[in-house]
Amino acid sequence: MKKLKIGLVQQSCCEEPQLNIEKSLQGIRKLAAQDAELIILQELHCTTYFCQTENTDNFDLAEEIPGPVTQQFAAVAKELAVVLVVSLFERRAAGLYHNTAVVLEKDGTIAGIYRKMHIPDDPGYYEKFYFTPGDLGFKPIVTSVGNLGVLVCWDQWYPEAARLMALAGADMLIYPTAIGYDPQDNDQEQQRQKESWLTIQRSHAIANGIPVISVNRVGYEADPSGNTAGTQFWGGSFVAGCQGEILKQAEAERDEVLCAEINLEQTEKVRRIWPFFRDRRIDQYDDLGKRFRD
Amino acid sequence: MKKLKIGLVQQSCCEEPQLNIEKSLQGIRKLAAQDAELIILQELHCTTYFCQTENTDNFDLAEEIPGPVTQQFAAVAKELAVVLVVSLFERRAAGLYHNTAVVLEKDGTIAGIYRKMHIPDDPGYYEKFYFTPGDLGFKPIVTSVGNLGVLVCWDQWYPEAARLMALAGADMLIYPTAIGYDPQDNDQEQQRQKESWLTIQRSHAIANGIPVISVNRVGYEADPSGNTAGTQFWGGSFVAGCQGEILKQAEAERDEVLCAEINLEQTEKVRRIWPFFRDRRIDQYDDLGKRFRD
Repeated sequence: MKKLKIGLVQQSCCEEPQLNIEKSLQGIRKLAAQDAELIILQELHCTTYFCQTENTDNFDLAEEIPGPVTQQFAAVAKELAVVLVVSLFERRAAGLYHNTAVVLEKDGTIAGIYRKMHIPDDPGYYEKFYFTPGDLGFKPIVTSVGNLGVLVCWDQWYPEAARLMALAGADMLIYPTAIGYDPQDNDQEQQRQKESWLTIQRSHAIANGIPVISVNRVGYEADPSGNTAGTQFWGGSFVAGCQGEILKQAEAERDEVLCAEINLEQTEKVRRIWPFFRDRRIDQYDDLGKRFRD
Repeated sequence: MKKLKIGLVQQSCCEEPQLNIEKSLQGIRKLAAQDAELIILQELHCTTYFCQTENTDNFDLAEEIPGPVTQQFAAVAKELAVVLVVSLFERRAAGLYHNTAVVLEKDGTIAGIYRKMHIPDDPGYYEKFYFTPGDLGFKPIVTSVGNLGVLVCWDQWYPEAARLMALAGADMLIYPTAIGYDPQDNDQEQQRQKESWLTIQRSHAIANGIPVISVNRVGYEADPSGNTAGTQFWGGSFVAGCQGEILKQAEAERDEVLCAEINLEQTEKVRRIWPFFRDRRIDQYDDLGKRFRD
């Protein structure tokens, strides 16, 4: 069996980026000590989830890639000989920013980057203000541990993104994410939302016969504007196998490092019994490129 | 609230088509008595799941649409003033057959048909032998109770099919299906498969913000060829709401009629908080029309 040990760092974040980075690095070290070869951080792990408000000062949090933060993580990737997936607020040019995942190889080089393609915008998630939609397409990043189908947060709701990664040979799907409850929603609505989040991501594993790894933020963050009740990030980071089965899942309420093993030979087996790729009606899918079929 | 009562008929089938039809009609009457306005039968409910073997004699089971079976169901639709979704083995011409869902209006007329687009072929599910892939595309059928996104069984594994129906204005997705355990699989594998089946269909509700109704066959059917251990159809027909939440689910092991209420106004509400349609990257989806991105 071609097994791969992977690690997930689920953490709460504070206002001081360097403290968040230290916490991430600590998690990475713990996971490397458990022999994880691929370690994944949550979305925008260096900062609080600053998109709760639209504030031009927050662009100060962005940096070029590579830049000092990339270098810090690259040094650790090299030191520990692990592949790292980090999630940064990228400054590409003045007035041009992205929500970008950076994949660092075991030698500390950049294996590739992915710029978040689907950008949300909801009360408390004002991402369209901060992030230009990605222009690199849906392309797996080739690494020594496999072809990584890295997507980010809002992308997780789009079967199209998962499919395009799988069709391009992704060995697994990876979602750094930052999603939580609106404290003003009732308990039933909160549970439905979290269950939806879990279900849609598990479904991408099923539809494509590849593992899914999702790493989510945890902890409560107040809304600096006071306009909303803030967000209670729901943690629950998880690893699902090729049939969508949950292999491991983190708690909802606390920092946690999670080590799990995935079996990369399972894709071959599952796609033999469920050969969904064989039967796609590509002659009839043109309208997927339409906004609406009206 | 714009509520709609729907009914599902989950049944085991025997070798005698007219007995299966009588059982379906009994179920329909029970559900109409509970004020269901839309009643859905499982895949190929008139017969056993004859696709367990490849046998040319089985083409005798097919009939034209409309034909005597369509007429029997149409008469009941009219008598009870319900919309019916039935699933027939369609003889379109000599040597040309389809797996076809027929939607009957409350006045007994045919509102539309859907010919199964994705055709499986696995040991025990030799559908490519029997059914030509549908040529009518993914188009909701307009009825007095809403636009029905009718798909059939294997289609349920394809997010593309669900999306195309939703983009064309489907108010709900409907899957008549016939799926079960291979008795030779161990319990863990059986449970993973059933859970996958449930999860992928719930995910279509989530991705598209519309209810999903799935009606599955139940009971054990031996393989006439003796080549396999037969199939234990796993029942578990269900109705999910617009966030993929299970509203009602039938048992795994017995005939059952299930009456559930869906709220068609929920789509508007859910799509406001989760505006996935707004953010689809249609500029980047061209490769969904490729077999593989190699």
